[in-house]
Amino acid sequence: MLEFTVEDLSAEEIERLRAIYEPLAVSVRELVDATIRTEVDADTVAAVKADIDAATARLRSNQIDGAFGVKRTTSGQSMSWGNAVIGLRNPIAPPLDIHRDPDGRYWCDFDLGAAYEGPPGHVHGGVSALVLDHVLGEAASPDGKPRFTGSITVRYPRACPLGALHAEAQITRVDGVKTFVSGYISDAEGITVEADGVFITPRWLRD
Amino acid sequence: MLEFTVEDLSAEEIERLRAIYEPLAVSVRELVDATIRTEVDADTVAAVKADIDAATARLRSNQIDGAFGVKRTTSGQSMSWGNAVIGLRNPIAPPLDIHRDPDGRYWCDFDLGAAYEGPPGHVHGGVSALVLDHVLGEAASPDGKPRFTGSITVRYPRACPLGALHAEAQITRVDGVKTFVSGYISDAEGITVEADGVFITPRWLRD
Repeated sequence: MLEFTVEDLSAEEIERLRAIYEPLAVSVRELVDATIRTEVDADTVAAVKADIDAATARLRSNQIDGAFGVKRTTSGQSMSWGNAVIGLRNPIAPPLDIHRDPDGRYWCDFDLGAAYEGPPGHVHGGVSALVLDHVLGEAASPDGKPRFTGSITVRYPRACPLGALHAEAQITRVDGVKTFVSGYISDAEGITVEADGVFITPRWLRD
Repeated sequence: MLEFTVEDLSAEEIERLRAIYEPLAVSVRELVDATIRTEVDADTVAAVKADIDAATARLRSNQIDGAFGVKRTTSGQSMSWGNAVIGLRNPIAPPLDIHRDPDGRYWCDFDLGAAYEGPPGHVHGGVSALVLDHVLGEAASPDGKPRFTGSITVRYPRACPLGALHAEAQITRVDGVKTFVSGYISDAEGITVEADGVFITPRWLRD
């Protein structure tokens, strides 16, 4: 059911594409933030909106059908550039840059601004769930083969402020097709959100 | 800790502000989608990026400090316009328009496109968690007073395709400061994601 496109892209070609499209997403992330926070007057908003509509039309003059998908290169690299959490071409994604330690711990430092707000000045609880679902899912897939969330439980011991945050996750147990992972989000004061997930090896990846 | 700003805004003034700023967010949502899907060449991307940076600078020439927050009017209306899920000024928000039936069922129909992708062609599991956290949270607060997620468990019986979706939630039980809520997301074929949450009445709202 899930189509992971395989394309014969060289490392140089991937880098060339990244250099073209990543800066655009960076700029649109800034625009998203400004759109929420601006207090300019109606005429200025209308003029800016017209410019944005023109920009969108230029970008749409040549575009793919549907969503970006996940492209895999023949060398085994995975390009999740449209992904809602890590996609370098997706302005909605913070985007998370997840690191792996030799001991199997996955972690990232990231910053969440106005676009991720729920309670005043704080991260939307669902955004914390979004981040943790992704970080736990990466930790569940140390061989690079995807595992999918079977279930995840997220607990909120404390409201999570917007700003600089840290997330990490680690496998706690593997039982057949089920991989159990735990993780958390923390700020400078300590843990704000915790999660436990069960990730499933898809049928087509089972031995 | 949470500052809900109270402002003396009339219904007419709120409507005037909505008419100015909502269309801008609608346009930026389209731009987000186009940014992910475009295949235009490097020169066009660079020109578009310059236009977007100029638009952002104009919007930022007069902007609030920090995030939008949640403004409450003296008449008791709540303006969560920056919210990551329902914020009409937030281009990241789909945004969800949640309805309440007389029997206490909360529901919404919505559409998720390229910006919400995880597995190819499918909704990111964390985005489903984000949506459900919000819809369950609304259902937990039928008196309009906020309740905050204590914990939420999300189960994924089936991969959720991008496109037209439906979500709903309902209180199953109230026990002191804890409100228990269940809900789901479905597509035309049936349920794709289920959630159970415990929502907590904050200390400052308890009798």
